[in-house]
Amino acid sequence: MTYSLNEICGRIGGWFEGDGSILIQGVNTLDDATCDEITFAEESRYYEKVSQGRAAAIIVAEGFPDLPGRNLVRVSNPRFAFMQIMEMFVAPFEVTGVHPDATVADGAVLAEAVSVGASAVVADQASIGARSFIEPGAYIGTDVSIGEDCYIGANAVLMKGTQLGNRVVIHAGATIGGEGFGFVWLNDHHHKVPQLGSVQIGDDVEIGCNSCVDRATMGLTRIRRGTKIDNQVHIAHNNDIGEDVIIAGQFGSSGSVTIGNQAIFGGKACIADHLSVGEKACVGGASVIIKDVEPGAVVFGMPAQPKRQTFQELAYLKRLPSLAKTVKAQEKELKRLQELVAELASKLPQE
Amino acid sequence: MTYSLNEICGRIGGWFEGDGSILIQGVNTLDDATCDEITFAEESRYYEKVSQGRAAAIIVAEGFPDLPGRNLVRVSNPRFAFMQIMEMFVAPFEVTGVHPDATVADGAVLAEAVSVGASAVVADQASIGARSFIEPGAYIGTDVSIGEDCYIGANAVLMKGTQLGNRVVIHAGATIGGEGFGFVWLNDHHHKVPQLGSVQIGDDVEIGCNSCVDRATMGLTRIRRGTKIDNQVHIAHNNDIGEDVIIAGQFGSSGSVTIGNQAIFGGKACIADHLSVGEKACVGGASVIIKDVEPGAVVFGMPAQPKRQTFQELAYLKRLPSLAKTVKAQEKELKRLQELVAELASKLPQE
Amino acid sequence: MTYSLNEICGRIGGWFEGDGSILIQGVNTLDDATCDEITFAEESRYYEKVSQGRAAAIIVAEGFPDLPGRNLVRVSNPRFAFMQIMEMFVAPFEVTGVHPDATVADGAVLAEAVSVGASAVVADQASIGARSFIEPGAYIGTDVSIGEDCYIGANAVLMKGTQLGNRVVIHAGATIGGEGFGFVWLNDHHHKVPQLGSVQIGDDVEIGCNSCVDRATMGLTRIRRGTKIDNQVHIAHNNDIGEDVIIAGQFGSSGSVTIGNQAIFGGKACIADHLSVGEKACVGGASVIIKDVEPGAVVFGMPAQPKRQTFQELAYLKRLPSLAKTVKAQEKELKRLQELVAELASKLPQE
Repeated sequence: MTYSLNEICGRIGGWFEGDGSILIQGVNTLDDATCDEITFAEESRYYEKVSQGRAAAIIVAEGFPDLPGRNLVRVSNPRFAFMQIMEMFVAPFEVTGVHPDATVADGAVLAEAVSVGASAVVADQASIGARSFIEPGAYIGTDVSIGEDCYIGANAVLMKGTQLGNRVVIHAGATIGGEGFGFVWLNDHHHKVPQLGSVQIGDDVEIGCNSCVDRATMGLTRIRRGTKIDNQVHIAHNNDIGEDVIIAGQFGSSGSVTIGNQAIFGGKACIADHLSVGEKACVGGASVIIKDVEPGAVVFGMPAQPKRQTFQELAYLKRLPSLAKTVKAQEKELKRLQELVAELASKLPQE
Repeated sequence: MTYSLNEICGRIGGWFEGDGSILIQGVNTLDDATCDEITFAEESRYYEKVSQGRAAAIIVAEGFPDLPGRNLVRVSNPRFAFMQIMEMFVAPFEVTGVHPDATVADGAVLAEAVSVGASAVVADQASIGARSFIEPGAYIGTDVSIGEDCYIGANAVLMKGTQLGNRVVIHAGATIGGEGFGFVWLNDHHHKVPQLGSVQIGDDVEIGCNSCVDRATMGLTRIRRGTKIDNQVHIAHNNDIGEDVIIAGQFGSSGSVTIGNQAIFGGKACIADHLSVGEKACVGGASVIIKDVEPGAVVFGMPAQPKRQTFQELAYLKRLPSLAKTVKAQEKELKRLQELVAELASKLPQE
Repeated sequence: MTYSLNEICGRIGGWFEGDGSILIQGVNTLDDATCDEITFAEESRYYEKVSQGRAAAIIVAEGFPDLPGRNLVRVSNPRFAFMQIMEMFVAPFEVTGVHPDATVADGAVLAEAVSVGASAVVADQASIGARSFIEPGAYIGTDVSIGEDCYIGANAVLMKGTQLGNRVVIHAGATIGGEGFGFVWLNDHHHKVPQLGSVQIGDDVEIGCNSCVDRATMGLTRIRRGTKIDNQVHIAHNNDIGEDVIIAGQFGSSGSVTIGNQAIFGGKACIADHLSVGEKACVGGASVIIKDVEPGAVVFGMPAQPKRQTFQELAYLKRLPSLAKTVKAQEKELKRLQELVAELASKLPQE
């Protein structure tokens, strides 16, 4: 993809003096941008870097100092403008249709402009909405329902009964709808609790590579509209994950967890079963949640507790050796005082 | 699947007054059960919910209060009875045979009633026991041996030489038999230690989605009969995991770990190499094991230690700020006492 | 594979008295080696085991005691010699060519002696170097470039634009080149930051089963020459992982992390975004890095800090209950002393 600088300025509403006919072939960082790429500099302190760089053009804030000889494009919000430019360089999906080496069951229903890659398998009774794109090797099980404009990555697996809204992205290698992990110990054996439910994923949800979402024991495991989940995350059976939640990589939940809208989870955090995390709570990376988290709370630690408290405790822990030393010195001093006082007492004139 | 309430009562030995001819189409939770579903209520405190719900029938304990107008089925153990009903609704596997889009090597041996899905690949010298079911996209490597009534999920991978007993379940995306992670630093390079062993998995073992079990450097990595492993678990080379062990999601082991029968691991726990965990030990979620765990021990923490001790230390840690304050106050008081005693001494009549 | 003991001695330069014509069919541990296998014993304290074992031959150090009737092969470094023997038993890759059930796009370029397994898919513009081996079900995306002598495991996924050097090993189920996890909150929605970069993997790198490496937002996510990565590891967008780094299982990084050459990470460690870990640093398992780690530092803990300090703090934490008790006793004693001193003062003869 190639755009003239004029086209780009038009799209972002940028103000620019100079030759707008130069061609831009891509975006890059301030450090690495080459002479046919555009970049951005958020603050004036990058002046030196901008002047020394090779970028074809640089998006800067309105107050950025003049720099003759460089193509500065002035906007009110350089970061946002640059994101818009990045979007211009995202390759659009090409409708490739059903590849001859894909396997689509006779009973599957594909809407218009659906693409299914080679070695992908679409089972009976599955339905795929318009313009959805199934990459090679993905498996769409029986009774799976996929909305419009969805993207299913290579070798991802959607097991029977999984329901996806519109514009859902399931990245490569993710497995959705596996059996919940439930066993009871009966007659000297672990006995599987049947896992009869399904997974329901709302519009605009995104689930990362090699992540897992288990189906409910009964009813639904829910991931609601707009929630974004990173790679290698495990969502257990009967979870109800709210809207617009952010979950970073390697997070893990246990069964029957509830998470409120717009909560945020750092990477590698985890949570015990049947707990809830309130709306807009913020859970630090690697935190281990063993009791409910209030809405809006900011927690961190193992176990998780208010972040400020965890860091206070860590600071006191660091001072513990010196505290122990003080206590030891006090013990000595106390003993000396006891002796001194006893000596004094013995020297007192008798009544 | 549909059953009459009479059929269900017959299966679980339940006691019921009323119209047993009504049809039940599924199971659900007390909250969500609709008018053609059956549910259960373990305790009398759910009386209100039961009376307000819409379920076609409710499994209750023998002592549950009467509720005219609702179809109560009385049993001695409602939870267990309900699990039996759930099992009635598990869809049986249909033998689908080898799909024309599967690839089965000429040298592979398939017993009767084996199913292999589209895009699945069965390599040379692999053998698959009667009634085993291979989902689409799975890969069964050379010399792999699969017992009877096994289930291999979509896109799962069994690498060469892996041996499975009977009734083993490998969920979607799991990879069994990868190379152990072993390198030695020689001549300024990491040099791979050849990984020549295999993986042996006993009867009735279950391994979750996207989990990994590495093959042994030499000999076998063993997962013994009846052990149940959740999603995204990593079992390293040369582990010997006992019988009927429970391992929750995202657990990770290092090389040459030994785990005793019926041990239980919470999610995200991990263990350093060459350690052992005794029979029936219970390891809390997210615990980090850096020394052996005794049989029957209940441990938690980073590093893992007896759970009671970890929580005692955490409680003391919480009181540390106040302890530090006390010590500071004592320091002041000690100084004051020293001065007082010195003053007293100076006032003593001289000998 | 079968070798005579003479052949083996020739390869490792071992010194041996006896019948060198006996045939060795494999390697095994000292405990498990059978009468057609070779094993090794590093130290003289294994004398008993060696004498009782059934191994066809045993590699020992030059100073190992004599043991008539057992085939001892003496070398200067038994462990290294044994690794060389293990390498003799690694099955060489057989060139199998492109399987008729593989899908290779017309625009893909395959060098000589490339193998592509059944159900594997090679997309347009992909190029695969000489002798590289693609296992069944793997997906090689558009514009992916694979060097010579690479190995791509079953169901692994290389997304568009991924670049691999020579002798790179990507194990089964790994996904390379997924989208970085970047969103901004705009107009009440999480808005995806376009992920336009790629992944570049150097020569001799190895990446474990079900691991993920995300592509850069712009530019490259880099894993440099000789680095070895275990199973279920997550490398985030724009990471720059140095040369000869060792990363054990379930490690996770956040965006824009930099790691120096020869750093070592224990399993399940993780690191927050934009941080760096210096050359030859050693990070203990399950450590949580929330600030930069100096070159050569040895760290452990949550949060990670010098290992010695973490263990010192843990030791003090263990003594905290007894410290609290001491402080309480001191409080009592202080009070008693205060009373005593007051009493003394009152008894002093008035001036």
